[in-house]
Order: sequence, then structure tokens, then C-alpha cells
Amino acid sequence: MNIVITMRILGILLMLFSFTMMPSILLSALYKDGAHVAFITGMAITFFTGFFTWLPVRRVRKELRTRDGFLVVVLFWTVLGLFGAIPMYLAEHPGLSFTDAAFESISGLSTTGATVITGLDLLPESLLFYRQLLQWLGGMGIIVLAVAILPMLGIGGMQLYRAETPGPVKDNKLTPRITETAKALWYIYLSLTILCAGAYWLAGMSLFDAVSHSFATVAIGGFSTHDASIGYFDSPLIEGICVFFMLISAVNYSLHFIAWRERSFAHYASDPEFRFFFFLLLVISASAGGVLWLTETYDPMASLRYGIFEVVSVATTTGFGVADFSQWPSVLPFTLFLAAFVGGCAGSTGGGMKVIRILLILKQGMREIKRLVHPNAIIPVKLGGRSVPDRVIEAVWGFFSVYLMLFVVMLIGLLATGLDQVTAWSAVGSALNNLGPGLGEVASHYGNIPDTAKWILIIAMLLGRLEIFTLLVLFTPTFWRR
Amino acid sequence: MNIVITMRILGILLMLFSFTMMPSILLSALYKDGAHVAFITGMAITFFTGFFTWLPVRRVRKELRTRDGFLVVVLFWTVLGLFGAIPMYLAEHPGLSFTDAAFESISGLSTTGATVITGLDLLPESLLFYRQLLQWLGGMGIIVLAVAILPMLGIGGMQLYRAETPGPVKDNKLTPRITETAKALWYIYLSLTILCAGAYWLAGMSLFDAVSHSFATVAIGGFSTHDASIGYFDSPLIEGICVFFMLISAVNYSLHFIAWRERSFAHYASDPEFRFFFFLLLVISASAGGVLWLTETYDPMASLRYGIFEVVSVATTTGFGVADFSQWPSVLPFTLFLAAFVGGCAGSTGGGMKVIRILLILKQGMREIKRLVHPNAIIPVKLGGRSVPDRVIEAVWGFFSVYLMLFVVMLIGLLATGLDQVTAWSAVGSALNNLGPGLGEVASHYGNIPDTAKWILIIAMLLGRLEIFTLLVLFTPTFWRR
Ligand SMILES: [K+]
Ligand SMILES: [K+]
Repeated sequence: MNIVITMRILGILLMLFSFTMMPSILLSALYKDGAHVAFITGMAITFFTGFFTWLPVRRVRKELRTRDGFLVVVLFWTVLGLFGAIPMYLAEHPGLSFTDAAFESISGLSTTGATVITGLDLLPESLLFYRQLLQWLGGMGIIVLAVAILPMLGIGGMQLYRAETPGPVKDNKLTPRITETAKALWYIYLSLTILCAGAYWLAGMSLFDAVSHSFATVAIGGFSTHDASIGYFDSPLIEGICVFFMLISAVNYSLHFIAWRERSFAHYASDPEFRFFFFLLLVISASAGGVLWLTETYDPMASLRYGIFEVVSVATTTGFGVADFSQWPSVLPFTLFLAAFVGGCAGSTGGGMKVIRILLILKQGMREIKRLVHPNAIIPVKLGGRSVPDRVIEAVWGFFSVYLMLFVVMLIGLLATGLDQVTAWSAVGSALNNLGPGLGEVASHYGNIPDTAKWILIIAMLLGRLEIFTLLVLFTPTFWRR
Repeated sequence: MNIVITMRILGILLMLFSFTMMPSILLSALYKDGAHVAFITGMAITFFTGFFTWLPVRRVRKELRTRDGFLVVVLFWTVLGLFGAIPMYLAEHPGLSFTDAAFESISGLSTTGATVITGLDLLPESLLFYRQLLQWLGGMGIIVLAVAILPMLGIGGMQLYRAETPGPVKDNKLTPRITETAKALWYIYLSLTILCAGAYWLAGMSLFDAVSHSFATVAIGGFSTHDASIGYFDSPLIEGICVFFMLISAVNYSLHFIAWRERSFAHYASDPEFRFFFFLLLVISASAGGVLWLTETYDPMASLRYGIFEVVSVATTTGFGVADFSQWPSVLPFTLFLAAFVGGCAGSTGGGMKVIRILLILKQGMREIKRLVHPNAIIPVKLGGRSVPDRVIEAVWGFFSVYLMLFVVMLIGLLATGLDQVTAWSAVGSALNNLGPGLGEVASHYGNIPDTAKWILIIAMLLGRLEIFTLLVLFTPTFWRR
């Protein structure tokens, strides 16, 4: 590992990141909400820490290598996440502890959207906007991570997308590729945000709410400026817009990139992951609507409306709410949660294990059964007509099992803090899948659980967002050997 | 598939199986417990069904092929399980419904040991003995299945043991191999049973209880003749004997076979699965004892005593009880249950996913992390100094994922019958791992859950006992094609 280049990158990242607090300083002045001191202090601390990290190594010029990519990505979410907590810790209202501030900040930047705060509607506007901005920034980071970096690092089978990724491949060097790809992705991400904000605004949201919620929507974050989340507006139109943009954001950005470059939409329908994703959503939405209707939880129209919204919100791992699905009849909360384990498509802002991995696991499971009957036949796993290399499938298995094992280990940790089983498993699942809401005690917020539990969940959010291996690899001796 | 040969086998199996009811007829006469009519009727129905299945095809002489092995194995547990229910359904006391009788019978034959009956101490002796005998018979079936058949069918990576299995390998033909191997295994199984029964008897059990509990111990079944299970005797000596024989029975019988043939024990210590199994048990027992002591659940001595017993009982998937572990401090019930998912060693009477598979999954997880840092290195997965073929590892992955998926599907099924989450997941886990006791509403028995739930659990017990794929493969069109 190149510690000097890492310091340089980290310094620059921190300096850039400090400007995230600028809009909130302006908003605070505009709304006179009293939080400006917290943001000015936070910005200064962040900027100058970055500056003094960068200063001694500013003259170093070296190309980033693949392996350095891991560290940069991890630093983005951990270090920026912690510095991002500063203004929330300093703000007089709502008066968070450092643990709570770190939870909220990392929940934002990892686009999890789990919150420890109640009384959002009374919060300073600057702080509200800042939370949404953290999500938006986190979402942008994920897009670059998922589309440009993960395929090159080969994490959890994502080398599958190496050839399909836009931008030129220059053997082992990361920078030129990332710069070019990132720019294209950034335009798409920004366009979607503007479209979404505009639609919200036309549908009746205030400008502030429209922009804030568009950030949380395209980032699949799920933070809201109201305790009642999207349900606050009680508008089928707004919910429809939200569903539409959640779906778009949970789709692989490589597909959007092709659409943007070639002005064509045909390739969406031929993408196996996209098809499987929409098939799953259709089946689960229909089942949820049906169960809600049959159990008379709502009237038929409301069953459909709430069923679709909550399924899309949970399955894409957004976590917006219009109804409390944790109170739905028994099989629904669990099933919806399962959908969050599947999550969004690879290369999207969605969380979870990613649709493509589940699809590959299913296909390999089928192959095993066929192999039992025909032990000597060679049966390839096919995706969209092409054979998937064994190396990719092995990586997916590795991802799947390590994902489950970490889930179980953190679940034991949460049980040890005294939480009940339903709260514990749903909290870990929600954090690891970057979903947001849980069941049981954490159905509406995470304010009442012990600090130890919060830190475990912070680790879970980071592990989930970093596709586990990006973080884990830093703890192996092999990584640090020259 | 050869339907004629299958009929012949099934007929013979049923006729032989009918004699399982003979000891109970004698016991019923001896104790005058009034259940003799049920057993005589059950025996007659079973025998004559077998006879008339066998009669039309009795002259057919054909070698069994590998593929036929699947069907024979599945018939053994399903058909015999259902016929085994007849005397329990017919017996006036305890007056079970057919669902309950089938649950109890298949729970016995699959060595799960989950019961729907309360008031065991008041049950007719003949019926009590019959339940224990079903477990013992099931255990014997598993040993043959796991050591002689699964490696040849290559289920879930078990081809790993193909070369190590005692007995000559005759290409595609099952019968000669099974006959010879089965005989050796049968001697070992019988010897262990006699030793275990003798030890229980010397330690103070009545002869009836000693024999009954030895059946349930070596079969890793867990049925008891008392509601309070092994706790009824309240004897550290009996518990020690029980722990000893549960451990022996959860070890791969191939190792016992070598010990028996070569009068040597050195090879146990060099077996990687054996070492990992005892390492796990040691860590979990020590942790459980420590937690029980620190939380002052029991005094230090009792913490150790109950900690070790329950951990060994649950981790080997026996399911005997001396204390209600479902009431232990929060992290323990879950952790113990996890140990049951790992289960016993391959080629033992234990349930669960089997230690060797978990070991291989862990090793492959480690390899994935190493591969991220060294993407071009060739890193083999090693077991006891030898490389494990990729084909085996793929089969293990397939097993693992299908196991989890079926777990989840059946869990949804149980939730749909209205059970709460803790009861539902633990019931499915317990049935699938052939453990026995659950948590929540099924901590002590399964009498109060809906019939639909019971049938789902019956399927779970069969799936678990048949290592999933043996049963699943029968539902593929490929299997039935010539
Ligand atoms: K989210
Ligand atoms: K058992």
C-alpha cells in the first residue's frame, strides 16, 4: 500500500467534502434556524484536517493502482462519514450524542436512511437539507464505485461487468478510467435528480421538499424531512413519481449510460438482471396487494397503492414509507425484508446483495440438481445467452456466504446488547442491506437502542455499502504486504 | 427410472419394516397397556401392503443403478414414515390425529425428535418403545445413506468421501457395495447402542429406559420416555454418558470404521472435520457456560454442567434436554440454534448442514479475500493437506444456497399459518436440521401449532434428513427421462 498517495487522496477528499456543509450555512442564514455555527465549525475542522493531511504530500504524483482503490473507497465512506457527523453533533437542536451523530451521518452517506431522530418536522432546515445532501453525495459515490471500481477490483463476481463498463480499460491504472466514466455517470445522476425534483415540485411539494426528497430518491437513501416520510404528502401522484424514480435508480447505470449514449431503450428489455428484477417486483407487489386486500387491512384501492409503494420502496432498499409495513399481516413484513436482501441491480444506488448475484445463485442451484442426474455432463451457467465463467460464480458464492456469516455475527452482537430477536435481525438486515427501517423496536427509528448496538449497525451499513469485501480485504495481512 | 425394481424394493422394505411393530406387540402384552390391537393392525396393514406390492414383481432380478438409489432412499423415509404412523394413529391413548401421528412417526424415523405429545410419562410402554425404535431404525438408515450412498450420488459435495468410503467400488452398481458396507456399519452401530444402553443401565436407569434412551442417543434422535427428557434423571453421571455417546455418534462413521478395522485411534486427531467440530463445540460450550455463570442464570458448577450438555445436545442436533435453553439469556438460544445449522459430521447420524460443508465454505470465503488481493494467483482450497476439487466446492455451494432458500420458503409458509417469527424460524430450523426442540411456542412440544404448519415441518424434516437434493431431484423432469 502506498500510504503517501492515500494521504494525498484523503486530504483532497476531506477538503472537497467540507463544501458539503456550505449550502447548509447559507440555508441557516436564510431561515435563521440557528445552526450556522455548527456548520461553520464543522466545515472548518473538515477543511483544515484535509489541508494539513494534504500539505506534506502535495508534491507526490503517482498513478493509483488497483489495490489502492480499495483504500480510497473505504476512506470515502468511513472518514467522510465521521467528519460528516461533526455539524450534527455540534448543532444545539436536536442535541445528538456523538454516537447518534455518527449513526445519522454514516446512515446518510451510505444511503441507508436509518435515523435516530424523531421530530424531523421541527428540525432546522439547514440540518434537514444536510442529511439529504449526504445521501445524494453517497449515492454519487456508489455509482462510481459500483460501475467503475468494483468491476475492476473483481468484488463478489462484479468482474462480470468489466467488459461492459463504459470507458476505456487501461490495464492496471485506475485514474483515467474513473475520471472519464465518473463524468458520464455524474451527468446521468444529476439529470435524474433534476427530473425527479421537478416532478415532485410540479406535483405539489414545496421547492425545499422537492429538492430534498429528490436527493433521497435517486440515491435510494430514504431520508425524509418529515417523520411521516412520503406519507406526509398523502398524494397518489407524488407516490407514483417516487415509485418511478426509485425503480429507475435501482437499475444498473450501465444500462442508463447506453440509453443516454445511443438514445435507445431496447437494451433494457434484453438485460437478464433487469427482467428478473421487474419480475420479482411484480410478483411481490401483486402478492402484497392481494394479501392486504384479502386480510382487509385496507380497501382494495389502498391495498394496491400501499402494496406497490412499500414493496418498491423496500425491495429497492429505499426505505421511504407511506404505511407502516411492520404492522402488516405476519408473512408480509418478513417477505418484504427478504426482498431487501435481494436488493437493487448491480451498478445502481440500491443496496442488498444485488439482483444479479441472486439470479446467478439460483441458476447454479438448478445446475447442481441437473448435475446429480447427469454427473458427467458439462452444464454451463448461462446469462443472456452467454456462459458465465466459473471464476465469477465462485466469487458470487464467496460473497453470498460471507454476507450471511457477517449478518449472523452482527446479529449475535445485537442480541448480546439485549435486543429481542425480531428487532435484532431486522436491524442488522436493514443496515447491511442499506434499507433503513426495521421491524419491532426499530420499525420507525433507531433512537432507543443501546450505543453498542448503534456502532454495530454503523459497521453493518459500511460493510453493506462497501460490498463487504472492499472493507474486509483491508483486514488481511496479504493486503498490506508489498 | 425403473418402476418395477422400485416396487420390488418398496415391497420388501414394507414387509421388513412391519416387524418394527413386533416388539411393541410383545411389550403391550407384557405390560398390559392396551395398545396391542393398534400394533397388530398396523403390522398387518404394513406387511400386506408390502406383500401385494412385491408379489407381482417378485421374479424381477435387476441390478440397482446409481439413479435408482435416490428413489429407494426417499421411499424409505417417506413411505415407511407414513406406514409407521398407523399404530400411533390407531392407539386409543394418546389419541392422535393422523397429522399428529404422521408428524410423530416421521419425526422419529428422520431422527428429528420433535414431538406433538405431552404426558409421555403416562403413555403405554409399547408406544414409548416404538417411538424410540423408529429413531434407532432411522439412524441406521442414515448411516448407510450417508456413508455408502451419498458419496456415490455426489450430493452436496459428498463425493469428497467416495475414495475414503470403506468397501469396494464397483462402478455404477449400488447393491454389492451397499451390502458389504452396510454390514460393517451395522456392527459398529449395534456395538455403540449396546455400550450406551449398558452404561445408562449401570448409571441407574431402568432397563427399559436404558435401552430406549440408547436408541435415541446413538441415532441422534432425542426422543425420550419422559416429558423432562434426560433432565428427569437429574444425574450428572447419566448426562456425562449421554454427552459422550452423542459426541461419538456425531462423528463420521468412516472414522469409526477405520478404528474398528485397525484398532487404532490416531486417525481421529488428524481428520480436519473432526478437529473443527471439537474446536467449535469447545468454544461454544465454554462461551455458554461463561454466559450462564456471568448472568447468574445458574451457580458456576451448574452453568458448566448445563452449558456443556445443552451445547452438545443442540450442536450434534440430538435435542435431549436437561434445562430449557430457550429461556437462557438472549444471545444463547440463537447461538445454540446456529450450531444446529452446522450440525454433526458428514457420515454420522447427526443433522444440520454438516461440519465439513461449513468448513469448506469458510475456507472458500477466505480464498475469495486472498484472490481479491492477488487476482491472478491460483489458490487451492486445502483440506488435510490435499486440494479439494472445484467440483466438490461447487456442489457444497449449491447445497448451502438451496438449503437456505428452502429454509426461507418454508419459513414464509409457517408465518402464513399465523405463527410468530421466533416460533416460525426456529421450528423450520429445528425440523430442517433434524434437531427437535424449537424456541417460542415450540420450545417444549409441537402440539399447539396448526396442521398445515405440521405438514410443512414434516417436509422440512424429510428434506433435512435426505440432504435436500435426494428429495428435490425427484421433482425434476430430467430425473424421470430415460
Ligand atoms: K435506503
Ligand atoms: K434430533
